[in-house]
Amino acid sequence: MTLIKQMQAQDEFVGFYLLKECEVKQTNATPPKDYLDIVLCDASGQITAKLWDVSAADKETFFPMGLVKVQGLVQTYRDKLQAKIQRMRKAKDDDGVTITDFIRSAPIRPIDLVYTIKQVAASIENAEVRTIVDFCVAKVADELMHYPAAKTHHHAYYAGLAYHIVRMLELGEFVCKQRPFLNPDLIKAGIILHDIAKPEEMTAQLGIVSDYSNQGKLIGHIALASGWIVEAAIRSEIQLDSEVVLALQHLVLSHHNLGEWGSPVQPQMAEAVALHHIDSLDAKLQMVEDALDTTQETEPWTPIIRGLENKAVYRTKL
Amino acid sequence: MTLIKQMQAQDEFVGFYLLKECEVKQTNATPPKDYLDIVLCDASGQITAKLWDVSAADKETFFPMGLVKVQGLVQTYRDKLQAKIQRMRKAKDDDGVTITDFIRSAPIRPIDLVYTIKQVAASIENAEVRTIVDFCVAKVADELMHYPAAKTHHHAYYAGLAYHIVRMLELGEFVCKQRPFLNPDLIKAGIILHDIAKPEEMTAQLGIVSDYSNQGKLIGHIALASGWIVEAAIRSEIQLDSEVVLALQHLVLSHHNLGEWGSPVQPQMAEAVALHHIDSLDAKLQMVEDALDTTQETEPWTPIIRGLENKAVYRTKL
Amino acid sequence: MTLIKQMQAQDEFVGFYLLKECEVKQTNATPPKDYLDIVLCDASGQITAKLWDVSAADKETFFPMGLVKVQGLVQTYRDKLQAKIQRMRKAKDDDGVTITDFIRSAPIRPIDLVYTIKQVAASIENAEVRTIVDFCVAKVADELMHYPAAKTHHHAYYAGLAYHIVRMLELGEFVCKQRPFLNPDLIKAGIILHDIAKPEEMTAQLGIVSDYSNQGKLIGHIALASGWIVEAAIRSEIQLDSEVVLALQHLVLSHHNLGEWGSPVQPQMAEAVALHHIDSLDAKLQMVEDALDTTQETEPWTPIIRGLENKAVYRTKL
Amino acid sequence: MTLIKQMQAQDEFVGFYLLKECEVKQTNATPPKDYLDIVLCDASGQITAKLWDVSAADKETFFPMGLVKVQGLVQTYRDKLQAKIQRMRKAKDDDGVTITDFIRSAPIRPIDLVYTIKQVAASIENAEVRTIVDFCVAKVADELMHYPAAKTHHHAYYAGLAYHIVRMLELGEFVCKQRPFLNPDLIKAGIILHDIAKPEEMTAQLGIVSDYSNQGKLIGHIALASGWIVEAAIRSEIQLDSEVVLALQHLVLSHHNLGEWGSPVQPQMAEAVALHHIDSLDAKLQMVEDALDTTQETEPWTPIIRGLENKAVYRTKL
Amino acid sequence: MTLIKQMQAQDEFVGFYLLKECEVKQTNATPPKDYLDIVLCDASGQITAKLWDVSAADKETFFPMGLVKVQGLVQTYRDKLQAKIQRMRKAKDDDGVTITDFIRSAPIRPIDLVYTIKQVAASIENAEVRTIVDFCVAKVADELMHYPAAKTHHHAYYAGLAYHIVRMLELGEFVCKQRPFLNPDLIKAGIILHDIAKPEEMTAQLGIVSDYSNQGKLIGHIALASGWIVEAAIRSEIQLDSEVVLALQHLVLSHHNLGEWGSPVQPQMAEAVALHHIDSLDAKLQMVEDALDTTQETEPWTPIIRGLENKAVYRTKL
Amino acid sequence: MTLIKQMQAQDEFVGFYLLKECEVKQTNATPPKDYLDIVLCDASGQITAKLWDVSAADKETFFPMGLVKVQGLVQTYRDKLQAKIQRMRKAKDDDGVTITDFIRSAPIRPIDLVYTIKQVAASIENAEVRTIVDFCVAKVADELMHYPAAKTHHHAYYAGLAYHIVRMLELGEFVCKQRPFLNPDLIKAGIILHDIAKPEEMTAQLGIVSDYSNQGKLIGHIALASGWIVEAAIRSEIQLDSEVVLALQHLVLSHHNLGEWGSPVQPQMAEAVALHHIDSLDAKLQMVEDALDTTQETEPWTPIIRGLENKAVYRTKL
Repeated sequence: MTLIKQMQAQDEFVGFYLLKECEVKQTNATPPKDYLDIVLCDASGQITAKLWDVSAADKETFFPMGLVKVQGLVQTYRDKLQAKIQRMRKAKDDDGVTITDFIRSAPIRPIDLVYTIKQVAASIENAEVRTIVDFCVAKVADELMHYPAAKTHHHAYYAGLAYHIVRMLELGEFVCKQRPFLNPDLIKAGIILHDIAKPEEMTAQLGIVSDYSNQGKLIGHIALASGWIVEAAIRSEIQLDSEVVLALQHLVLSHHNLGEWGSPVQPQMAEAVALHHIDSLDAKLQMVEDALDTTQETEPWTPIIRGLENKAVYRTKL
Repeated sequence: MTLIKQMQAQDEFVGFYLLKECEVKQTNATPPKDYLDIVLCDASGQITAKLWDVSAADKETFFPMGLVKVQGLVQTYRDKLQAKIQRMRKAKDDDGVTITDFIRSAPIRPIDLVYTIKQVAASIENAEVRTIVDFCVAKVADELMHYPAAKTHHHAYYAGLAYHIVRMLELGEFVCKQRPFLNPDLIKAGIILHDIAKPEEMTAQLGIVSDYSNQGKLIGHIALASGWIVEAAIRSEIQLDSEVVLALQHLVLSHHNLGEWGSPVQPQMAEAVALHHIDSLDAKLQMVEDALDTTQETEPWTPIIRGLENKAVYRTKL
Repeated sequence: MTLIKQMQAQDEFVGFYLLKECEVKQTNATPPKDYLDIVLCDASGQITAKLWDVSAADKETFFPMGLVKVQGLVQTYRDKLQAKIQRMRKAKDDDGVTITDFIRSAPIRPIDLVYTIKQVAASIENAEVRTIVDFCVAKVADELMHYPAAKTHHHAYYAGLAYHIVRMLELGEFVCKQRPFLNPDLIKAGIILHDIAKPEEMTAQLGIVSDYSNQGKLIGHIALASGWIVEAAIRSEIQLDSEVVLALQHLVLSHHNLGEWGSPVQPQMAEAVALHHIDSLDAKLQMVEDALDTTQETEPWTPIIRGLENKAVYRTKL
Repeated sequence: MTLIKQMQAQDEFVGFYLLKECEVKQTNATPPKDYLDIVLCDASGQITAKLWDVSAADKETFFPMGLVKVQGLVQTYRDKLQAKIQRMRKAKDDDGVTITDFIRSAPIRPIDLVYTIKQVAASIENAEVRTIVDFCVAKVADELMHYPAAKTHHHAYYAGLAYHIVRMLELGEFVCKQRPFLNPDLIKAGIILHDIAKPEEMTAQLGIVSDYSNQGKLIGHIALASGWIVEAAIRSEIQLDSEVVLALQHLVLSHHNLGEWGSPVQPQMAEAVALHHIDSLDAKLQMVEDALDTTQETEPWTPIIRGLENKAVYRTKL
Repeated sequence: MTLIKQMQAQDEFVGFYLLKECEVKQTNATPPKDYLDIVLCDASGQITAKLWDVSAADKETFFPMGLVKVQGLVQTYRDKLQAKIQRMRKAKDDDGVTITDFIRSAPIRPIDLVYTIKQVAASIENAEVRTIVDFCVAKVADELMHYPAAKTHHHAYYAGLAYHIVRMLELGEFVCKQRPFLNPDLIKAGIILHDIAKPEEMTAQLGIVSDYSNQGKLIGHIALASGWIVEAAIRSEIQLDSEVVLALQHLVLSHHNLGEWGSPVQPQMAEAVALHHIDSLDAKLQMVEDALDTTQETEPWTPIIRGLENKAVYRTKL
Repeated sequence: MTLIKQMQAQDEFVGFYLLKECEVKQTNATPPKDYLDIVLCDASGQITAKLWDVSAADKETFFPMGLVKVQGLVQTYRDKLQAKIQRMRKAKDDDGVTITDFIRSAPIRPIDLVYTIKQVAASIENAEVRTIVDFCVAKVADELMHYPAAKTHHHAYYAGLAYHIVRMLELGEFVCKQRPFLNPDLIKAGIILHDIAKPEEMTAQLGIVSDYSNQGKLIGHIALASGWIVEAAIRSEIQLDSEVVLALQHLVLSHHNLGEWGSPVQPQMAEAVALHHIDSLDAKLQMVEDALDTTQETEPWTPIIRGLENKAVYRTKL
């Protein structure tokens, strides 16, 4: 079975893949004919594909997010690889394939990521901070097991959000050791809470974001999370004008650093400055790591990375 | 009694004024001598003033926000007018002067402004919208009677905030008539709520902002008001993910229009677009009106107005 | 007859439409075949359409801005609706259809709009201001009856320019009442003159702009209108350095507010500040209203609106 | 007699200078005393100066733009040189000094500069272009003899405007030779007209701009000159929509290149692109030349030059 | 033989052309068929072309940068001209055509351009400056004979880089005459060195840049040339901290003027200010000249020019 | 002895301090009198001070960077503390005070910092990378022992540069462990080299930068360090176009991330992305830590921090 990342022009292949997208379209022919415009993916990457001469049965059979067995041919179309599907059928129970094997996932099991997050939350010494963090984590307990951190930007895969949080927590722990003037409770809380409302901002399945929610577009995850802190405080009878609520709201609200990046206030506490930079360091390095991972090893340059000022990244030979 | 706005270089004057600022400083002389560095104001404007050769008693006597009787001389210092104080004493009960006569105020009585706001709030038809608006207005019932809308930008005087809201409500009513596709409840609610957390953002007395609060600097009035809507919904058992909460949070969060102006999301509802432009129209025209009002009528140009791209305004002769 | 706005994929339809665009193109087939690439429109919206297998006669028959009777089928092409034309013929006299029924128009009759504008112009008290306004309005007397206010931005339909002016005049009248320090003559004149040279800037037919003129690209409507004021003054023997010419030129030149938006000077008169904000409020709200109007009512979001920072607008359920 | 440029701290000096600015101010002493706050200048530069212990007669005697004989001492105040005036009297007829010897001037006689400009104007082949250029030059015939090109930016001295035009004409002639596809008439006309309305934009005496006029602030020299072209065309019965008027207006309107620099349209003719760059090259090099000229030769760095992105310039030893 | 620039829709043509690009692609047909996607060029311009129904032999025969004889038909595809190739064969020796006749070239022979550059280099009086310039020119002796100055921006043709340098040297000589305070050695050296590392930045053949090199993307021609000056100094035993090395590095490093345009320092020497503006003047005018040259003379407007703020240029009728 | 950080208005104090700045100035009195305008510092902070009634002997005695014993009084001048010096004498040998006790220093001994840097350099596995790093470190062996990392921005104290490097090396080591795809040699080399040319960019004594050098202003530390890598390669016979030279130059050139921050190329290698973010995280947190350290602990807000978007930082009470 051929991994998508390894497909090259003129390759013939047979294997199981996930139908990430699948839409009936019409050719330009006269009269136009129906065909299926498809995106196939596996854990190594994705490729567009076409099923020409589609039958009425095909249109009833194939839907996004289903597993299929495909026989096809890799072609080049507009400088990109594209598969021409010769045969395709739905996967059956006795094929022994599982959907989660075909999606990109964080390299650590979701259950372990969420366990780590909860352990760190439990280690927060200030009871009010801990209560608010627990309240917010509980709100997205299910989603943390599988949500990506973003639609395409970075950590855009199964459990990417939890993975992003865990890596940041490691960095945060190191920075707190290096700089004892930082309050570890606030660093931990800031990291766990900063993107906690992303699952309300986006609709995602299997680590793939299909859309932003109305809440996401009209309020945004930053103000949503800030509102959750208010809600947590009210439900737990913590004073809304307490230092804890002030600090936690500030951490969340300022973590994008600048107004043009969506933060209504700029970092003005040591821990907020740290949070923004830890977030940025982790997100940018992950973008680079993911781009290199999904680029053929023989290619010296990745495709352009939008979150990196539209620059491609060079794979040094050293 | 000379109005400050009418003072000219070389004028001698006697009158009652408000000590807006009053600080003991030292001259450059050797050895340095103490003097009082003062800002006098009345309803027509303000002027810096010096009381040289200050006695120990003087230092115990004069404090900011007190009324004083002053005899002085107007001089020019660095191209600006400045009063040299020759005699000064605190106002006494039988002088018959009242502090509110000496500060700039909205041209309508605070009690009438607040009454209007409450009437409009009561006219909101959607019960949930009305409940949330009432909750937030109740939070600042006292402050609405006297808070300015900003430190220096616009409506920076006694009850300036309430005045700004009332003028916007008039405009909003007109625009709703012109464009019936707008939801008047949301326009009313958006106008009343958009700056409702300003009293928590700033510390003000007699319409004069002395400082921003920690809440103001670290959270900002936009996210504060968004949090109040969450709080109002919880206290009134309105669903946090309801359309009403969504719409009201969006109106408040987006009213500064752009990220660089402090809005974490941009207007994406018709009423949010209207709210931003009504706010902008009222604030900018008020800046201009205030600048012309406090500039001597013989002067064709006002001083530079920061909120107007640092432009001065020309008083047309037409 | 099916309104274009109501067409859905797989619909069959018959009806009269306006051929807004009509061009002979070649398919990708080998050898390529000719087809007609068409945009059909009616007052409710527009849709791209294809007439495959086009005959020599067809190519002689169909031209832009003609009315046609069409039988067709709605398909989906690249996520957008597109009509496949099965039969098409030119409209005949006895079909009883009129071209102006098939274009988007201002909701008020052009003749009434122009009448209102002239009435307001006549109500200007200052004789020199009135003379200049009349001169400029006379220059575009015909075009005011049908020109749009912009190519795509806002009020892009039959008599959109006059409609934009009239709505602004209503707003201007209200603002003058609210703020008596404003000079109503200048507000009226500024509103009527601000976009008065648009018909020289663009070439439009039936409310549809096909191109910008050389004058439009090399001088622009702002400097053109400023030149008309000079011309009006010379022809009417008004002093070029008079306060009236100064004020009117300033109003026109500054109404885009910022250099990057095309204004060589920024608003520096109260009336110029008002003009910019009234223009902006009316244009933005019209964009939103038009976008909502031409979006199916079941759709919660409009398409992206370029003039609104590329944001879509949400149709609140309240 | 000591040139101002050569003055160094602790120097005593006697000589004639121009009182560029002279204002009565008060010291911080108690009671404050009057003194004269002065700017002295000669053709080599300028220096601030103080006349302490000023008498009533002094205040009646000394005014800006008068010549004086001064005996003084150079001191350092806040890192800058400043003269303490020990004795000062007005220049008398028999002192044999002439005011124009004490101001910075273009290095070529004004009469020669203006002669050159008129010769070039006369050499324009297209009669309509020539007529319009002559009309506009005639409007400022007197001012061209002495106006500076800007308040402080560049060529800020006697006849600086004419000098700027003449140097640009030399460059323009060279560029036209290098690139025969350029129309020399338009290059000549563009250069002569581009800043022709500066004398209406600013009030200047002896090459020193004291202020911007209302016309300058509210219309700006770019739109003013564009209006003059309209006026010239009307007075000379040239069609307002002719190619000549179009081209000349475009040259003037676009010569600042970008909206944020004041041009409502960007250069879109070859000659307009050339004009902007010739203007820019000449203005920037003149700023640098003037800064080096007025900096002591032993100083390796000039003061910061605002028009050069706030950079100082290094005097290379090569 | 038809020049590409003169081709119009529906023209049939026969002639020799250069295959600038040639790639096998597949049609959308079912099953897809191979075709050749081609760019043909001659010295007057270029056109995309298709060879449908391509044979196996064709795929072996035609490669980029080969000369071919073509019989074809000009069609319109998506508003652009495109050639349909009816017959095509490789050029043969006895066809008497030479590849350099079919590419755009500087209007002066490369050998003459390089001769001029070397003559000017030899005329530099300062021995160290001359040594460094010679060293760097020697590094690209071969490439100067044919490299373009940029990929698409300006002077994008055979020997465009040398041509750009020579025109700038002419301008530089004129400016040095106009302003004797400039150091001609530095002007000459700056002009020759400013883009000298472009051949290391880009890969080009026959004046056509196919790609940027790793060095070009990761270091850029500005820092590369700055490194060459260091290298030249070391190899010639010139002090690295000498005034000459300082000045030459500064000229190269600052010639893009602003950080956002790639210069790590801004011009801070008179000659650096001159260099930037001479470069800019020459590059922009060349863009305009080239755009007008390659646009049909009957077209009043060129296509949009990216390096000119995305503006098209108008061909004045004067 | 009173630490400067602890001084409060009205305090009298006696102690040893460093004369960081000391200049003779004149009062505004008539006639003006000389006084010494002074900045006193110790390891805890600095304060401006005045010595009035200065004698001729005083002017000969006191110079910057000398230790003095001072008796004085703390006053408030323009809202800031300022010391009035009552008595002052130079420190004597038997006072037992050492200058390095009176300056702000990195919290680790310079000798240990430099030792760490050299150890890390020695641990680089790639011989060419190590050679180049060693060469550059050797160039500034002395300066590394005491240079600050910047004039005011961050790490502006004795050995601040070495301290910055060491903290970054710790972070870099951690990040390499977290992300094994990063090349540790390049991370180490990039961190050591990124600011290595700062000592050539600035003139500093005792950790205090007095000025930028000509090299610093005209070339900048980024291009200087890039040139050192070229020099190191030549001296060590490493190929200039080798992957090692490419990678090291890229790391240095791109570490400011954006053109407007001084980097001529943007990070396009994983290690370059890491380097920029590690640098940024360390610099920003150090600014915050230093600002909090030098602010009285009773103050909830630090002064504004320029490198932090002009924001002050709040000292949370948690």
